[in-house]
Amino acid sequence: MKFNEFVENLSNYEAGKPIELVVREFGIRKQDVLKLASNENPFGTSEAVRDAIVQNAACAHLYPDDSMYELKGALASKFGVEPQNIIIGAGSDQIIEFALHAKLNSRRAILQAGVTFAMYGIYASHCEAKVYKTSAQEHDLAELLKIYNAHRDEISVIFLCVPNNPLGECLDAEAVYEFAGSVDEDTLLVIDAAYNEFAAFKDERKRLDPKLLIQNFKNVLYLGTFSKVYGLGGMRVGYGIAPRQIINALYKLRPPFNITTLSLAAAIAALKDEAFVQKSLQNNAAQMSRFEDFAREQSLEFIPSYANFITFKLSPPLDSSELCEQLLRRGIIIRNLKSYGLNAVRITIGTQGQNDRVFGTLGEILSGY
Amino acid sequence: MKFNEFVENLSNYEAGKPIELVVREFGIRKQDVLKLASNENPFGTSEAVRDAIVQNAACAHLYPDDSMYELKGALASKFGVEPQNIIIGAGSDQIIEFALHAKLNSRRAILQAGVTFAMYGIYASHCEAKVYKTSAQEHDLAELLKIYNAHRDEISVIFLCVPNNPLGECLDAEAVYEFAGSVDEDTLLVIDAAYNEFAAFKDERKRLDPKLLIQNFKNVLYLGTFSKVYGLGGMRVGYGIAPRQIINALYKLRPPFNITTLSLAAAIAALKDEAFVQKSLQNNAAQMSRFEDFAREQSLEFIPSYANFITFKLSPPLDSSELCEQLLRRGIIIRNLKSYGLNAVRITIGTQGQNDRVFGTLGEILSGY
Repeated sequence: MKFNEFVENLSNYEAGKPIELVVREFGIRKQDVLKLASNENPFGTSEAVRDAIVQNAACAHLYPDDSMYELKGALASKFGVEPQNIIIGAGSDQIIEFALHAKLNSRRAILQAGVTFAMYGIYASHCEAKVYKTSAQEHDLAELLKIYNAHRDEISVIFLCVPNNPLGECLDAEAVYEFAGSVDEDTLLVIDAAYNEFAAFKDERKRLDPKLLIQNFKNVLYLGTFSKVYGLGGMRVGYGIAPRQIINALYKLRPPFNITTLSLAAAIAALKDEAFVQKSLQNNAAQMSRFEDFAREQSLEFIPSYANFITFKLSPPLDSSELCEQLLRRGIIIRNLKSYGLNAVRITIGTQGQNDRVFGTLGEILSGY
Repeated sequence: MKFNEFVENLSNYEAGKPIELVVREFGIRKQDVLKLASNENPFGTSEAVRDAIVQNAACAHLYPDDSMYELKGALASKFGVEPQNIIIGAGSDQIIEFALHAKLNSRRAILQAGVTFAMYGIYASHCEAKVYKTSAQEHDLAELLKIYNAHRDEISVIFLCVPNNPLGECLDAEAVYEFAGSVDEDTLLVIDAAYNEFAAFKDERKRLDPKLLIQNFKNVLYLGTFSKVYGLGGMRVGYGIAPRQIINALYKLRPPFNITTLSLAAAIAALKDEAFVQKSLQNNAAQMSRFEDFAREQSLEFIPSYANFITFKLSPPLDSSELCEQLLRRGIIIRNLKSYGLNAVRITIGTQGQNDRVFGTLGEILSGY
């Protein structure tokens, strides 16, 4: 059977390895596996969310309220926007997919930082579009603008990941607003704020305001997620905030019932539990310092991170694939960044006890080099 | 902001109204609303599924095992195929989306029955493809073949919905196999078996065998779902079974983590609870007879149904929109088929008690005409 030509050339996203795989392949007991590979919340989900899931378990047969009235209302009131400025996705990924499908085709292109979230490029390739990247790995707004100006007719979508996954660096909000002002009204500027809560907690200058963004720019799509600080990685709920005209177009590409009934209930409950969010942010900040101290002690190069992970850049003889494999055999899953073209690893910031285990095990491995 | 031209012309799927909307708009108490509009399982989910959800609620922060090792293994063993012949989707809808995206473009077309599941045409329009339909509302294989032969170079995908949603009629398995033999190897034949368990229970000649299909035809994609007889409508889990070459292509278009952690656990548990499935099938068959009796008493025209719903074709002065509205005010949600171009309503077969309420309320309304 023949398929559209572009399908043959697509590459798949390389996800963090699941706990189940380590159990199956290395025979390690499930409770002994520590997964710090996918930036999930180390405190799990809040008790309020667990209660909501348990209470709604008997409704699993019912399709969700596809208007998502309550969730959109709660997000609208949190951000001071209208429900009509919001779209919900199965993770913010899905909103990226809608946006690219709406804007791109084989004659168009996206622009992004040299090393950033892989799904931007993957979804662009589903639309047969070209991907422009800066030579700088981290976000370099001057270089982004230079490339944009050189290919203004071709570039339809620009991505800023604030803070950047998988590197951890973070643009100031003011710099983002200024950049938005330099972009044509017909170029969609996607601001991926999946980890922005962590950045804003560390430094108020990093806090993005979606209301201000959509009031001032007709071409901005702000993306948030419940997968990280809200602890709902497994429930697949993200949101997009944008001017109505953009939301209306994305809605036309949204399949009905794109999140589950329990995901909807979980997200509504998660939004209400601000104490859990604060606890998660505080733990992350405190434990991030310990990771930085550990890196300095071990002479590991790290990128100061504004997210809930830290990226170590390795130098020979240290090799990221080998290091990940050695940790895996000891039941610790971290993220190899080789698929991003880097000899580097990304580790999710865990709880104090989880991190103690990482420092102990990793320190032992490193002492062998 | 300008979007791709096709986006402007897209229409949205009109879903069954959610219970929450009736509560909000008509002030009816939630527990008094009876939803028989979306063919959900009237027994809800099985207790085994509820237990699995409750047990996994504390894992909601963890991304699912994206290999879906256990679920694909269980489906493979149920159908006697290999796990490599299986793809999991967020509902079988999503697999339709992958398939059409892989096969279609603005120069291609799909072929389907005159009245069938709306999402085929909607996803085709996302690919800017044309939709050919038979003049017959129900599946007419001779007419399908005639149109196919007239547009063989253009038609890349053919849909058979067995049994057909929203009408309820059902092709014999033998007729489906024979039809598959008349289709070019490069034309994808999608056999949507979302309701096939109900048909097979009523009449063994309707039972489709995915193993036999993929052994004999290189171009067949069989679709099943957990949303109907398995009682997981709100969890969004469907599956596709096809030769490996097709599955490999669809996988390239699958976003990572396309079902939730709890959906995965729920589907695994649902597959094991055969007693719940049998109870659901028996209830459906017994209650379907009562609906047919009711229709005869009321002189309502109905299509003999092989699914878990029944479709009444109305004649003036009866109007489907008016009838749905009258039921809605009394807390009963059924499905208006006006968006399919029919003066007809589709009612999900409920439990005995639910159906008693429908017969009473509907009988009362009809006596006013």
